[in-house]
Amino acid sequence: MVSELMTEYGNNRCLIREISEICNKKAAEIGRENLCDFSIGNPSVPSPLAVREAMLDILTNENPLNIHSYTSAPGMMETRDAIAENLNKRFGTSYTGKNLYITSGASTSLVCAIKAVLKDADSEIIGIAPYFAEYKAFTEGNGGRFKLVPADTEKFQINFDALEALITEKTQGVIINSPNNPSGVIYSAETLRKLSALLKEKSCEYGHIIYLISDEPYRELVYGDEPLPFTAKFYNNTIVCYSYSKSFSLPGERIGYVLVPGEADNWEEVYSAVAGGARASGFICAPSLMQKVIARCADIEPDISVYRKNRDFLYKSLTEIGYECAEPAGAFYLFVKAPNGDATPFCMKAMEDNLFIVPGSEFGCPTHFRAAYCVDYEMIERSIPLFKKAFEEATK
Amino acid sequence: MVSELMTEYGNNRCLIREISEICNKKAAEIGRENLCDFSIGNPSVPSPLAVREAMLDILTNENPLNIHSYTSAPGMMETRDAIAENLNKRFGTSYTGKNLYITSGASTSLVCAIKAVLKDADSEIIGIAPYFAEYKAFTEGNGGRFKLVPADTEKFQINFDALEALITEKTQGVIINSPNNPSGVIYSAETLRKLSALLKEKSCEYGHIIYLISDEPYRELVYGDEPLPFTAKFYNNTIVCYSYSKSFSLPGERIGYVLVPGEADNWEEVYSAVAGGARASGFICAPSLMQKVIARCADIEPDISVYRKNRDFLYKSLTEIGYECAEPAGAFYLFVKAPNGDATPFCMKAMEDNLFIVPGSEFGCPTHFRAAYCVDYEMIERSIPLFKKAFEEATK
Repeated sequence: MVSELMTEYGNNRCLIREISEICNKKAAEIGRENLCDFSIGNPSVPSPLAVREAMLDILTNENPLNIHSYTSAPGMMETRDAIAENLNKRFGTSYTGKNLYITSGASTSLVCAIKAVLKDADSEIIGIAPYFAEYKAFTEGNGGRFKLVPADTEKFQINFDALEALITEKTQGVIINSPNNPSGVIYSAETLRKLSALLKEKSCEYGHIIYLISDEPYRELVYGDEPLPFTAKFYNNTIVCYSYSKSFSLPGERIGYVLVPGEADNWEEVYSAVAGGARASGFICAPSLMQKVIARCADIEPDISVYRKNRDFLYKSLTEIGYECAEPAGAFYLFVKAPNGDATPFCMKAMEDNLFIVPGSEFGCPTHFRAAYCVDYEMIERSIPLFKKAFEEATK
Repeated sequence: MVSELMTEYGNNRCLIREISEICNKKAAEIGRENLCDFSIGNPSVPSPLAVREAMLDILTNENPLNIHSYTSAPGMMETRDAIAENLNKRFGTSYTGKNLYITSGASTSLVCAIKAVLKDADSEIIGIAPYFAEYKAFTEGNGGRFKLVPADTEKFQINFDALEALITEKTQGVIINSPNNPSGVIYSAETLRKLSALLKEKSCEYGHIIYLISDEPYRELVYGDEPLPFTAKFYNNTIVCYSYSKSFSLPGERIGYVLVPGEADNWEEVYSAVAGGARASGFICAPSLMQKVIARCADIEPDISVYRKNRDFLYKSLTEIGYECAEPAGAFYLFVKAPNGDATPFCMKAMEDNLFIVPGSEFGCPTHFRAAYCVDYEMIERSIPLFKKAFEEATK
């Protein structure tokens, strides 16, 4: 009686959330101190103090009618301007508030961008494994077709031969995510240059723009000394999707943005299409209190020292055991090869020993598993013997 | 290069917002005290004190990681249970938290419900004028077809002959909105009984369920002595879409819900399809702080005395001038017949005299205009000579 596709989406829930809920049930039974939960990417560091103080100050001192009223759909201009200025300072760009559309986080941003670029029922979007599996639902659930480039399991950059083979005249967009969930790898400047060259060539060949949709919620979580290459500087027709979920530890509050750079061809038309995608999705405005908070706090930098410490310890410990792991340069995930090369049974077995990790099948890369290290350090310490036992059992 | 439909949606903005922004510009020029702004439905009464206190208390006393983390996609169970209990107390129903899916307000709820019931590209949704024009974008922007029943300009109930003529085997849903924006009229129990009988008959005739999507953000804003007839009690296959925007004066914060009653046929499948519609729209969870606020405040009743006083005075004044007006039983709008029967030029002319009202063309009923009376009483007093002048000019 209802939509089969939507019912399927509603029934087949995201595996990460499934595992996380199994874990929570088990925690209620045996106590959280008796299990090791690496299942979900919920930040373990509280929001920056300035962010929390801004919320309280606004609620205490501003007129509630001003705080909680509708804003314009693209967001408050002071919020948009503050974000543009911050990006310009950091990346040498020249955006204004008019390039920004404030959304309810990166997923909303992605749906707006995808709806904007899908032209008809044959339009295609390409994702690159390992990837956030919701890209497929966001595309197919809005009338498009989704294709996946298999993972480069060597370096976790992009398998360009496979990507080139998948691009057709129907390709409207390619979605990338760097720093990557689940691999933690950052796409190098070389990768972005090659990607830009390929997309330019193919746009030219097919006579229409292929947009690069850059999903960047982990942009601020980078552990190396080199700054992250800013995708939009490599390819003009980039649509940037951002969220404050990870950088400001506000995943429940749903605040982020779409950036349509002024360098994009006919950028104002692209921006209108993004706004139309938002409108068709029932988006009215981003949460107004959080818009006010971002207007004040756009320049605040997150403290990533806790995640860095976790990463260093977990990576060192796992590689000492013998695990092979993608280079953990950003985000808060390790993506680790299952010792027997098949992560699903490996993760199921680990779960029996109260070690909760997510099989890479969820991300289009079934040889690996994901461990989210946005957790207590003490839990990582407790987990090492469990990882060791799992490794030994799988390799004996 | 991008979607034509989405670009159109992005460019052709909602007329209400256009007029409101013209008004704001004018206010910046001549001072807000020199114009009368009845354009937009932004609540003029601050959020209930208990709601504001709950926000501050949660932010001050709870762990920020608990406040701002992802919740499960359908929402926190304590929030869902609190809403179910409140509905049960007031309407004699027997819902549980499992019947509720917390959303980012009524528009998100509507898109989830519409995506849930659209089966294929031929599926149709029917709206009833006067109506919230976004229903059309929510339907067509998600791959369905939209049809509109012309207004019953006599009583502003439902033109049943026209509705019956529009229902086909492709009809998947009918959207109603009572108390109605823009008319302020409440659908009577008799109307809801007739609607239920017609939908049952047609569901039977075509061998599939026609869902009633009930958009109820104004449910708590009712000025008569009789309680509002609760739509879901008249027709089992109702999907209720609610928002706290108006009742708690939180339109910017985006918090509401979808209710799928246990009485609906295969209600769990319908609920799954709604959840799938949310997932495909990039909805992750409703804003978590607001979910916590609603869990505490679900039983708080809004103080509607300000709106009642405004309504009484504006209605009395306009009818004394000679205007004809729909019965203003709920919400915070008067829907008034333009003296010459064509509201668009009437509203344009009024705007020149700094009286900002919205032509009914925006709502599928071009003979009338909407005046949102969620405004200062003093402004209503100032507006009466302007309404008088506009009436006299149009009838001379």
